[in-house]
Amino acid sequence: MDEFEVSPWNASGKIDYDKLIERFGTQKLENSLLEELKNLTGDLHLFLRRNVFFSHRDFDKILNDLKNGKGFYLYTGRGPSGPMHLGHLLPFIISKWFQEKFGLNVYIEITDDEKFLHSENLDLNDTYRFSMENALDIISLGFDEDRTFIFLDSEYIRNMYKLSLRVAKKVNYSTVKAVFGFKDSTNIGMLFYPTLQIVPTFFENRRCLIPEAIDQDPYWRIQRDIAESLGHYKASVIHSKFLPPLTGIEGKMSSSMPETAIYLNDSPDIVKRKIMKYAFSGGQATVEEHRKLGGNTDVDVAFQWLYMMFEEDDRRIKDLEQGYRKGEILTGEMKSILIEKINGFLVDFRNRREKYRDRLDRFMYDGKLAEKMWETFYDR
Amino acid sequence: MDEFEVSPWNASGKIDYDKLIERFGTQKLENSLLEELKNLTGDLHLFLRRNVFFSHRDFDKILNDLKNGKGFYLYTGRGPSGPMHLGHLLPFIISKWFQEKFGLNVYIEITDDEKFLHSENLDLNDTYRFSMENALDIISLGFDEDRTFIFLDSEYIRNMYKLSLRVAKKVNYSTVKAVFGFKDSTNIGMLFYPTLQIVPTFFENRRCLIPEAIDQDPYWRIQRDIAESLGHYKASVIHSKFLPPLTGIEGKMSSSMPETAIYLNDSPDIVKRKIMKYAFSGGQATVEEHRKLGGNTDVDVAFQWLYMMFEEDDRRIKDLEQGYRKGEILTGEMKSILIEKINGFLVDFRNRREKYRDRLDRFMYDGKLAEKMWETFYDR
Repeated sequence: MDEFEVSPWNASGKIDYDKLIERFGTQKLENSLLEELKNLTGDLHLFLRRNVFFSHRDFDKILNDLKNGKGFYLYTGRGPSGPMHLGHLLPFIISKWFQEKFGLNVYIEITDDEKFLHSENLDLNDTYRFSMENALDIISLGFDEDRTFIFLDSEYIRNMYKLSLRVAKKVNYSTVKAVFGFKDSTNIGMLFYPTLQIVPTFFENRRCLIPEAIDQDPYWRIQRDIAESLGHYKASVIHSKFLPPLTGIEGKMSSSMPETAIYLNDSPDIVKRKIMKYAFSGGQATVEEHRKLGGNTDVDVAFQWLYMMFEEDDRRIKDLEQGYRKGEILTGEMKSILIEKINGFLVDFRNRREKYRDRLDRFMYDGKLAEKMWETFYDR
Repeated sequence: MDEFEVSPWNASGKIDYDKLIERFGTQKLENSLLEELKNLTGDLHLFLRRNVFFSHRDFDKILNDLKNGKGFYLYTGRGPSGPMHLGHLLPFIISKWFQEKFGLNVYIEITDDEKFLHSENLDLNDTYRFSMENALDIISLGFDEDRTFIFLDSEYIRNMYKLSLRVAKKVNYSTVKAVFGFKDSTNIGMLFYPTLQIVPTFFENRRCLIPEAIDQDPYWRIQRDIAESLGHYKASVIHSKFLPPLTGIEGKMSSSMPETAIYLNDSPDIVKRKIMKYAFSGGQATVEEHRKLGGNTDVDVAFQWLYMMFEEDDRRIKDLEQGYRKGEILTGEMKSILIEKINGFLVDFRNRREKYRDRLDRFMYDGKLAEKMWETFYDR
């Protein structure tokens, strides 16, 4: 059973990330590259140490541009189709880490156009509401208001449209059909939209690094085909795995199945209930058997979440893994540890969010970078 | 030989306008409708008296909305792919006439996006330059600066994008392929563009009348399919014939063949030379034969231009027709009459154009209607 599918609009089956590297034609994010990065930063983020970001395109060139002083900028995005869950945070958390390490500019595109076009049951009012809520969630991770620009496509189109036309002129229906699997029944908004996801890779006259989940890679295949002919750099990308759904390690969290995810506004009680009730266990059927045979951390979602996101301490995570495998730690205990970690994270997050509420305009409209971006018309 | 083709990007062969009404599924602009209009206006513009505008969709509903006091607005456009010639003026001249008669708002879309996307050899710098020159040409016909808004898609996109997304969500690739003959090799900008030509039909909460050459009709087929589901009116349209090319009555004037057209900035000498040299004649091979057999006004381009555009006097045009058919008027005489008319028109036009130069901003940015439009964000 190695049947799985990963596209910008779907992920299903048990995803084999090594196979995905082959299928997408990307590169493994090798330790040698991470060591080079560590020489520059002093440490590595958990997402890098634990292979949550596991694949890349041209990350070696980013490292070179760091070393030769040219620098780079960060670009990532969010499709505002609903409230955000923990799995959505991965690219933003790593972006914030890079921003802090090197004082980088970060551009965050809120793709309200794409979500409206793609979702039968979303109106522009809905996508606007989610956009603003999601934007506040994102900046509350602690981005720098002077170096971060977060924008809605439907608003920033005024400065992006000419560049998106330049992109559009180089991409035909055959290409988007092949890359995204579009059909004759696909609406013409969806056919054009890829141009708007590509445009921010041209925002500065240096390389951009895109931290994103692997499902977004198709856009960069097109970008990398045309960027140089437009006088810009090919995008560099680091790809993350999906934080697995609570209900089991196949596919990705789904907004249409709330039991698969923890939302940023889930109360401590709900977090506890969801994890206790739904988190797929790698343990044995009974305590006795578990003590005797031990559990399987590879499929235990509570362990996987701790490993991928919530247990910072490398020694502690190793202890948890071994303890679970030996049967010394029970499923319920693993879940309790996760619950405490997540609730701690979410309480801090929501406190910060209240403080950031009044500062959202700085990130969107009148902060140092935002103001510069609104004054810039791209027309080269 | 009734092979001819008419699409937004091509017109070739001897166009049979009656067949085009059948092919496009439009209505003949019957005298009964024109009489109704005349009852409201007192007179009819030459383009209406002489069937230059020969076809329509829902013009009867426009007349009803005039009678019941609801009124309507005008919308037309220009693709800025080069300097304008006389044939381009038809929809603007009739729009100005309607504006004067009823005090109507007129919206004029300069489709710089579409021309950039469609033309291999046009850059956005070129389309911008042509846009501004063309816009000045158009307003110089005498439009009312308080009731006319002329805009470039690449600039006004900021207010149109959300509406264009609403349109896009209702139109798929199959539809634009069938309506426009798009292919898999068509770029994705062209696939999306029809939404932007449709959006201005939703600018006011009343019916819009679109005076345009018949080749633009495909856009309105899509508009009329989806308008009501978006809470708007189906577009009403009156369709003009093409002013025939100087070189013969087949096809339409072509910017790539300057000898087929008179440009608005052609000097009196050039006008004279082009008409004398290139205007296809319906006369006989020799003066003697012409005197004996008479000429054919149906194919004589000089006569056709006088009939369709430059000889206002109905009695005089009848005299010219009969005189030519009888052989009393020679080809050279017909051409001389046309040259004088055109040069008179162009001298007046260019004088007005110099006066309008400083007023272009009123029509585009800060006149009464323009200012209102820039303050209006369409998001219903």
